[in-house]
Amino acid sequence: MSSVFTEISGGINAPAGFLSGSIYCGIKATNPDRPDIALIVSSKPSVAAGTFTTNRVKAAPVRVSAAHMRSTEVRVIVANAGNANACTGVEGIENAKRMARAAAQALGLKDRQVLVCSTGRIGVQLPIAKMEPSIAQLAGTVHAHGSSAAAEAIMTSDTVKKEVAVEATLSTGTVRIGGIAKGAGMIDPNMATMLCFITTDAKIEKAELQKALSVSVEHSFNRITVDGDMSTNDTVLMLANGSAGNELLRVGTADFEIFQRALDHVTLTLAKMIVEDGEGVTKFVEVHVNGASSFSDARRAAEAIAKSCLVKCAWFGGDPNWGRIMDAIGYSGTKMREELVDIYYDGILAVKGGLASSTPMDKLKQAVAADRFRVTVNLNLGSAEYNVFTTDLSTDYVTLNMGE
Amino acid sequence: MSSVFTEISGGINAPAGFLSGSIYCGIKATNPDRPDIALIVSSKPSVAAGTFTTNRVKAAPVRVSAAHMRSTEVRVIVANAGNANACTGVEGIENAKRMARAAAQALGLKDRQVLVCSTGRIGVQLPIAKMEPSIAQLAGTVHAHGSSAAAEAIMTSDTVKKEVAVEATLSTGTVRIGGIAKGAGMIDPNMATMLCFITTDAKIEKAELQKALSVSVEHSFNRITVDGDMSTNDTVLMLANGSAGNELLRVGTADFEIFQRALDHVTLTLAKMIVEDGEGVTKFVEVHVNGASSFSDARRAAEAIAKSCLVKCAWFGGDPNWGRIMDAIGYSGTKMREELVDIYYDGILAVKGGLASSTPMDKLKQAVAADRFRVTVNLNLGSAEYNVFTTDLSTDYVTLNMGE
Repeated sequence: MSSVFTEISGGINAPAGFLSGSIYCGIKATNPDRPDIALIVSSKPSVAAGTFTTNRVKAAPVRVSAAHMRSTEVRVIVANAGNANACTGVEGIENAKRMARAAAQALGLKDRQVLVCSTGRIGVQLPIAKMEPSIAQLAGTVHAHGSSAAAEAIMTSDTVKKEVAVEATLSTGTVRIGGIAKGAGMIDPNMATMLCFITTDAKIEKAELQKALSVSVEHSFNRITVDGDMSTNDTVLMLANGSAGNELLRVGTADFEIFQRALDHVTLTLAKMIVEDGEGVTKFVEVHVNGASSFSDARRAAEAIAKSCLVKCAWFGGDPNWGRIMDAIGYSGTKMREELVDIYYDGILAVKGGLASSTPMDKLKQAVAADRFRVTVNLNLGSAEYNVFTTDLSTDYVTLNMGE
Repeated sequence: MSSVFTEISGGINAPAGFLSGSIYCGIKATNPDRPDIALIVSSKPSVAAGTFTTNRVKAAPVRVSAAHMRSTEVRVIVANAGNANACTGVEGIENAKRMARAAAQALGLKDRQVLVCSTGRIGVQLPIAKMEPSIAQLAGTVHAHGSSAAAEAIMTSDTVKKEVAVEATLSTGTVRIGGIAKGAGMIDPNMATMLCFITTDAKIEKAELQKALSVSVEHSFNRITVDGDMSTNDTVLMLANGSAGNELLRVGTADFEIFQRALDHVTLTLAKMIVEDGEGVTKFVEVHVNGASSFSDARRAAEAIAKSCLVKCAWFGGDPNWGRIMDAIGYSGTKMREELVDIYYDGILAVKGGLASSTPMDKLKQAVAADRFRVTVNLNLGSAEYNVFTTDLSTDYVTLNMGE
């Protein structure tokens, strides 16, 4: 089944009918060489799907995009980095609408055909007067090879651009899905301080697109954590413009299943890139809990381990400190019996029945010395499981976040 | 009412009829100059009260003490540092019982008259054979000025000894309450990796003592957090031996109220000492949330702020980053309306109605530059409130926890 899709180049421009680009307008004052506004334009009206932060403090662009998404003729995503337009009140909402309007006017569209996103510092008004002419200029220069430029423009403390694309062969034609994302800080399950924009040329209705996206997000962006802080701006947006000419995708068909797997690959690839490029990250760790009594118990245990400051500091130091993992499971609220718990580092037994295994500490240290490893916890109570992708907690994380 | 008690010297030996001391037996191999076993002995049978970790992974001594506490003739607390005797299975339980037995035999008591505690590394068996003769030797050398020695013996990564004592004048006599504690890492509400031993010569029945202690712990140790990791060993124990000769304390009387206030002072003083001496701590911060719809909403918001890695890193850097505080309130699950939230640093308005106040950033920075400050959040929804004592998150915290 893994051969139902293949990775291709082109990012968000790989699907037919999408152009993109970026421009510098001066929001990121400290870094004038980097673009700070990205634009993605579909040549045809698209249906849109999205998932947004569950934080009760929602940034202005989140509110505006959630409203504009109801349109079935979406054409544009415009996004800026350097300023989150969060905690900015009525003026912030107005500025988010002006961002949309600037793109709409330049492209001869209605405001509600434009979705908007922002990421960066909270509590500062957007320099909207500077942004409007830049957005208008950018609208005239988007092109078919602008994916990397757009991916670069949404970076904040990210150190690498994040893009991926796949091509999948359906029974009625070939479709493509491309995505870009940014992450770095404030990364936590149930959406991170992250933006992700996905394009596809598949023909699919709005409800089906939302269904597919929600499933993919649940298994990717909702399972990553860097620092446990969920942002006010988290947004995943997906546009489907139907340019591929396939027959309309229907839930329950083999083609839909192929599309779902291809989309899963795009979101999981980008989610893992976000974790790997998290602030100060030196280790990429998958925490996998199985044998839990229930799905929510498995999740509670996995998230407690993945977010524990003490566990993450130990990993940073290459210390396979399983006592801290046992401790985190214990306070997670999951049903557990200490004497049944087994813990593995990359398949090497560290804890058997709640007690230190006979594995020599040096062997466990070897596993934790790697840049990437997997921690598996078997609660031996039931059959539910959950996994989270997380990181260590380094001195660099603290240094990166101790000031402006 | 603050004059109903006064601080006195003597720690846990300030109340009449308590002796204490400590000895080095070699558990803390890396630090042979520091004692690692403490002993507290009451000359008379005492009633005991206690609160224990709610972590489902409970250390062996927690289980043994919880059982022995049912005795109304408790005489002894024996505690070691350097080894938590947690995740040690049946052998761990047996070793905790042997600790109690060693003290009981040396003092001619029954095993269940001895409470035991351990703190330190998880997952390693106690070197019980070394400990037994040391406990026997220590039992013969406890004395009336051993409080500091006992406080020193229970330190792990603590940098200062923590002890306090008060004297309160009741209508039927003067009573004293003394306490020692240890903290440093794995500190979180609902009990920290902390041990606290409190003595009193007040005459009070077991049920009343437990009631008073539970109230005090709820307002002190359950409101502190350093790193959000709740330990397997957290224990507060209190012995009341009745030596003061007061009339039996009854709930609902003015005398009980005085006793409660004096005990509150002991627990809150020790709790604050634990936060101030937390691993790598450079800032002591009180987070106070008011105007919440409910007590649990106030608590959720306060704890989210107090545990946010991003908020704590900002404080470490002296950055009054209120956007991160808004963000934490937003994901805490508390009922809130962004546009109603006010935030103060030491009484200086930072956020008014969800937006940046007009206070100059320099003035806020001055507040956050201090070693101690208070963050006040008014949700302006109701009248419930909650406070948490917390810290910054420093590079030293990470360094201290990255290896053995």
